Amino acid sequence: MRWWLSLYKLRCISCKSIYDADEVEYTCPKCGPRFGTLEVIYDYDEIKVNKEEFDKNSDIWQFEGILPIERGSYRTKLKVGGTPLYEFPDIAEKFKVGRLFVKYDGGNPTASYKDRASALAITKAYEKGYDTIYCASTGNAASSLAGLAAPTDLNVYIFLPASAPIAKISQLFIYGANVIPIDGSYDQAFDVSMKIGEMKGWYSRNSAINPYLLEGKKTGAMEIAVQLDWNVPDYVIVGVGDGTVVSSIYKGFYDFYKLNLIGGIPKIIGIQAEGADAVKRAFDRGEPFEPVDMPARTIADSISVGKPRDVIKACKYVKKSGGFFVSVSDEEIIRSVKELSESTGIFAEPAGAVSYAGFKKLNEEGFFTKNDTIVLVVTGNGLKDVKAIERFVEINPVKPKLDLVMDYIDGMEKKK
Amino acid sequence: MRWWLSLYKLRCISCKSIYDADEVEYTCPKCGPRFGTLEVIYDYDEIKVNKEEFDKNSDIWQFEGILPIERGSYRTKLKVGGTPLYEFPDIAEKFKVGRLFVKYDGGNPTASYKDRASALAITKAYEKGYDTIYCASTGNAASSLAGLAAPTDLNVYIFLPASAPIAKISQLFIYGANVIPIDGSYDQAFDVSMKIGEMKGWYSRNSAINPYLLEGKKTGAMEIAVQLDWNVPDYVIVGVGDGTVVSSIYKGFYDFYKLNLIGGIPKIIGIQAEGADAVKRAFDRGEPFEPVDMPARTIADSISVGKPRDVIKACKYVKKSGGFFVSVSDEEIIRSVKELSESTGIFAEPAGAVSYAGFKKLNEEGFFTKNDTIVLVVTGNGLKDVKAIERFVEINPVKPKLDLVMDYIDGMEKKK
Repeated sequence: MRWWLSLYKLRCISCKSIYDADEVEYTCPKCGPRFGTLEVIYDYDEIKVNKEEFDKNSDIWQFEGILPIERGSYRTKLKVGGTPLYEFPDIAEKFKVGRLFVKYDGGNPTASYKDRASALAITKAYEKGYDTIYCASTGNAASSLAGLAAPTDLNVYIFLPASAPIAKISQLFIYGANVIPIDGSYDQAFDVSMKIGEMKGWYSRNSAINPYLLEGKKTGAMEIAVQLDWNVPDYVIVGVGDGTVVSSIYKGFYDFYKLNLIGGIPKIIGIQAEGADAVKRAFDRGEPFEPVDMPARTIADSISVGKPRDVIKACKYVKKSGGFFVSVSDEEIIRSVKELSESTGIFAEPAGAVSYAGFKKLNEEGFFTKNDTIVLVVTGNGLKDVKAIERFVEINPVKPKLDLVMDYIDGMEKKK
Repeated sequence: MRWWLSLYKLRCISCKSIYDADEVEYTCPKCGPRFGTLEVIYDYDEIKVNKEEFDKNSDIWQFEGILPIERGSYRTKLKVGGTPLYEFPDIAEKFKVGRLFVKYDGGNPTASYKDRASALAITKAYEKGYDTIYCASTGNAASSLAGLAAPTDLNVYIFLPASAPIAKISQLFIYGANVIPIDGSYDQAFDVSMKIGEMKGWYSRNSAINPYLLEGKKTGAMEIAVQLDWNVPDYVIVGVGDGTVVSSIYKGFYDFYKLNLIGGIPKIIGIQAEGADAVKRAFDRGEPFEPVDMPARTIADSISVGKPRDVIKACKYVKKSGGFFVSVSDEEIIRSVKELSESTGIFAEPAGAVSYAGFKKLNEEGFFTKNDTIVLVVTGNGLKDVKAIERFVEINPVKPKLDLVMDYIDGMEKKK
């Protein structure tokens, strides 16, 4: 066994069986892929890190001592992570909460949070000796895998619902990935991809199934802790599809807590779209948690998931944190995209703005207090899906004549 | 006079008249807007900076001691600049050049280099007491102004050609800017905006006209110097529309050179689209430089400029650097978008990929040697204009049945 393998093990989220890292590839053989997603657990006493080595603007690899990867193995060339955490005192004041922050991941190489996971998956593919990697995705995981793998010699296969936004689909082709557009839902694309991947012997970057993705994603939470100078916020609010990102937020803080770098773990609030709130439904039914599948329908394509793959972990982690799940309507989501853009300059894709929509909804119910510090995670760039905001666009071209343009402007000013 | 005004003055690029900062707003009254764009000149002996205070990942405001702004005035909330400089040894090897770097600005808040200029313009609008700011733009300057001004109380008016890519137009509306879609070219939108702006008493963020924009843009060059550990590359290659970005690259290195922070200035090579190469034409005719206007037609909308506004400065600066201009076809541009994406994972908009197209063209002519260090500036994110790459997208949906998908994959593999 190579030395670093002793530093971490894999544990089933349901039956708690513990496996060596080279013993199991994806999920617990006893509990199956729905109930048996794995956690990466560490021997925290053996991990030597201290606060001073972390930087507010560095990339995800600054956390490599707390990641399940080999020293010296492949690292993505493009800068993943090190994304900004912005404070908005005016918004906090408007909503009468203590402090409000936005962790904005739209500036990642392929413009979404998913780059954190794809970076890890690519490293693991190399470590494990695969030559092909694949995923099923509504778009962001796919473009992220395609983009970050583009400069490598890995073959990339992407299974995606043919209905994904054109910007996301275009990214795949431009990166030279092999694209298989499925005439069906994300859930159908996912299931068929798993079978193909197994038959072909490809490495899976499928959400939740691959235990290392969450470890990549947890770096977002770790950055929040570093950027807040090791002060833990009261709440972190984030959109939920498969449940892996929300779980990763917990895990990032959990690892730091176990390493005595922070004094606690924030309450994690997961926000779902009303038309695809299968994780919330499972959570609200209570323990023992069980998947509650449903047909998914929401404008927020990145979280349009009816059969969430990390539902057990998401429910358990959110519960442990003292948090819960909320759902918001498509109308609330789209209005949040606009309001967030206008008030912060951050143009989020719909799935990225759900955190803001959820925050507003809870705040209207009087949930937060003047003492609360809240972090909203905005997971993707609005440029990924401009179609979603077409309703705000109004183009009535005017000829470039001075008097006509003056009239046009007068008309605009009167309308206000 | 306030103390900081003594640190810099404005000088006409043509007649060399020198003005105090509060004496002239935009261009030299004697030479007019085409010949009389202004340079910001400093008393370098009075500027106290040293190498140690600069960071490879910080934002543009780390250079505030070398920017024409007041201490303590408005600074953009969102992180502008601090964008990555990537080295690609494999590409350098493939093309038999020394070292090849890409400065990628697509991760800026509104996903383009223009954020650097808009940030300065907003600061100056506040310092000068304006309540409204405007620009004419093919898209990037506009979305950047709209996005960075969104969280401020400035009113924003945008004049843009109604033919701009929908992603760029959508950004404007989502940020709540007042959009005036002009049924005409960028050049027509520009001219009418100048008249309206003057009549209304608004502050102009129009390219080249406003001398401070270039000062914001020069931070890109300064970052390159910092990121290369103060080693100056042999060549910096960048796309050219109005001529302000290419001028700013020179100015950034020039300022650092005058401050004794670097030992020289790289040769600057400006790349234009063949259908809009008015700056190249002016340059090639030689001194004294004069504008050579033309109808503009290129797929690279951000540099689709027939009447460039900074042509004199661009020609003079590029000449002083020992560089020159090259033009490339739309076909070369689009192929460069694809090649750059596939080989680096950087998905550039067409105007961003022209630097790579120009590099390849020159290299095919045997221009570069094995000793040359070359930096390509990629100015904008490909998500800004996915329509431009539609030709690479091929969607033939397949039903989510195992055998059908297997056949589909076999078909893909055979085609290779």
